[in-house]
Amino acid sequence: MVHVTESRVVALAGGVGGAKLAYGLAQCVPSERLTVIGNVADDFTLYGLHISPDLDTVMYTLAGLANPKTGWGLAGDSWQMLDMLTRYGEQPWFRLGDRDLATHLLRTQWLAAGLSLTEVTARLAEALGMPGRLLPVTDEPVRTMVETVEHGTLGFQEYFVRHRWQPTVRQVWYQGAGDARATDAALSALRAADVIVFCPSNPVLSIEPILAVPGVRQALQARRGVCVAVSPFVGGKAVKGPADKLMGELGLGITPPDLIRYYVGLIDGLVIDEADRALAGECAVPVLVTPTLMRSDADKVHLAEKVLHWVEGLHG
Amino acid sequence: MVHVTESRVVALAGGVGGAKLAYGLAQCVPSERLTVIGNVADDFTLYGLHISPDLDTVMYTLAGLANPKTGWGLAGDSWQMLDMLTRYGEQPWFRLGDRDLATHLLRTQWLAAGLSLTEVTARLAEALGMPGRLLPVTDEPVRTMVETVEHGTLGFQEYFVRHRWQPTVRQVWYQGAGDARATDAALSALRAADVIVFCPSNPVLSIEPILAVPGVRQALQARRGVCVAVSPFVGGKAVKGPADKLMGELGLGITPPDLIRYYVGLIDGLVIDEADRALAGECAVPVLVTPTLMRSDADKVHLAEKVLHWVEGLHG
Repeated sequence: MVHVTESRVVALAGGVGGAKLAYGLAQCVPSERLTVIGNVADDFTLYGLHISPDLDTVMYTLAGLANPKTGWGLAGDSWQMLDMLTRYGEQPWFRLGDRDLATHLLRTQWLAAGLSLTEVTARLAEALGMPGRLLPVTDEPVRTMVETVEHGTLGFQEYFVRHRWQPTVRQVWYQGAGDARATDAALSALRAADVIVFCPSNPVLSIEPILAVPGVRQALQARRGVCVAVSPFVGGKAVKGPADKLMGELGLGITPPDLIRYYVGLIDGLVIDEADRALAGECAVPVLVTPTLMRSDADKVHLAEKVLHWVEGLHG
Repeated sequence: MVHVTESRVVALAGGVGGAKLAYGLAQCVPSERLTVIGNVADDFTLYGLHISPDLDTVMYTLAGLANPKTGWGLAGDSWQMLDMLTRYGEQPWFRLGDRDLATHLLRTQWLAAGLSLTEVTARLAEALGMPGRLLPVTDEPVRTMVETVEHGTLGFQEYFVRHRWQPTVRQVWYQGAGDARATDAALSALRAADVIVFCPSNPVLSIEPILAVPGVRQALQARRGVCVAVSPFVGGKAVKGPADKLMGELGLGITPPDLIRYYVGLIDGLVIDEADRALAGECAVPVLVTPTLMRSDADKVHLAEKVLHWVEGLHG
């Protein structure tokens, strides 16, 4: 691997889209200089297991173990446990793969034994040979809650998986965020970073619940490095998932200028897709226009290279 | 199905051998008149899951779902979770199948929610369509402990599975038995039973930890029905597992007269294999000599029929 940069890079990432760019970054940045700060607000408990979907997606993707079809879960997984649960009359709505269960069982057991989520995540990631460092933004419970028109208030996974993000969203909030605090490790990484990248994750459901943890916004505002966001939108649409629908329901725009306003005071530049080139002139911060769709591993690495090269220029 | 008896039958059963005869009994006794009292002293916790190996073996076998090759576990199961655990650097020594995990997850979750082991077992068994009723002897923790020459004191599963019952046993005891009490359901079943059968399970590791729970021995001594044991030994050997080796190490004999002394005051008859016919004359209680090996489902039903017919005679 030829390292594109010797900078200390911190990426903020949610699920599948964020994990893809994080994978690209991991091919360009020496392992000891890359930190991914992960969203924990979509964590939940199912059948007594502590499940951290976003952390797992980043971990599996960077370790090269993710299911290439879905972007989440493990390649080559099976669903025997779920099939048997159904036999017991359960109606499982969350896809827990048999291999994936090992992760949840170990995490749950280690948390119960008193380890922090940060320690558990480090152990799991190290065992899988994941490059870089994956830090949950906080060790305390923060949970994204979604108030919907049709079903009232739903936990995030109920909204996202059980109801397939079809309900109309009135409001999103991050339960527990007020009382939580970012880990020292996450805050130190942000303070020491030369480059901070908001990966192309859902702004409201993945990036914001990281920013909402006390300490993070302040650390970003006091940054010594350069912070850029990569837009998850292409030509006015989300690449995957509910981001465009949701942002519309919340009255938030998804054009590049809208995103810059959303992240005001936090970012020094925005990366947008070729499809949004026409709006580049209206942006209040420097903009990199480049293909942002990541279909192959080569795409992920290419986008990471482009972003890192561009940021080096912003630096100077 | 032609019911062989209208008697209320209670079977005491441990693992594979006991489950086989219980399966046979379930083909001969109306479902609402059959109760199996199961051993819980081999229960243990692994990866945070409450595992009840003996209860599961009986439940799977009676529901027709057991792995026919091993006698325990589920037919058609796979080991993806374990494979992934190994990838995490764990060295799993207990075979947790992927389908089997559904049972452990539900049990653990329901116990944590405050249900008793009796209630949990009933729910699981009902969902699987298990004929008869399966009752853990107690809802309180009783754990078989094995003091060995080579490894000191081991929990039962460590002795049995991890060390493949190879260590030399000095002593066996049932931790928690003194403070436990048999459930009302189990005691009522014993009191109401017309027929009680000690299935061909390991006397020290399967039947004794049932008898050791306060209330059981007294209920058996005060029985209104007839109680018989089916010897798990054939020609001076255990059909499966460590029973002969273990009994020898503990200075206990395994001939029919030895078994009758072991169960003195509790049984009114003993069922022994053809191979032990020569010792029938030395027995202090009535003896049925019949083939006791159960290789096929037909064997199981045949032995159950034989035992039930014979007991009807003892009755009169």
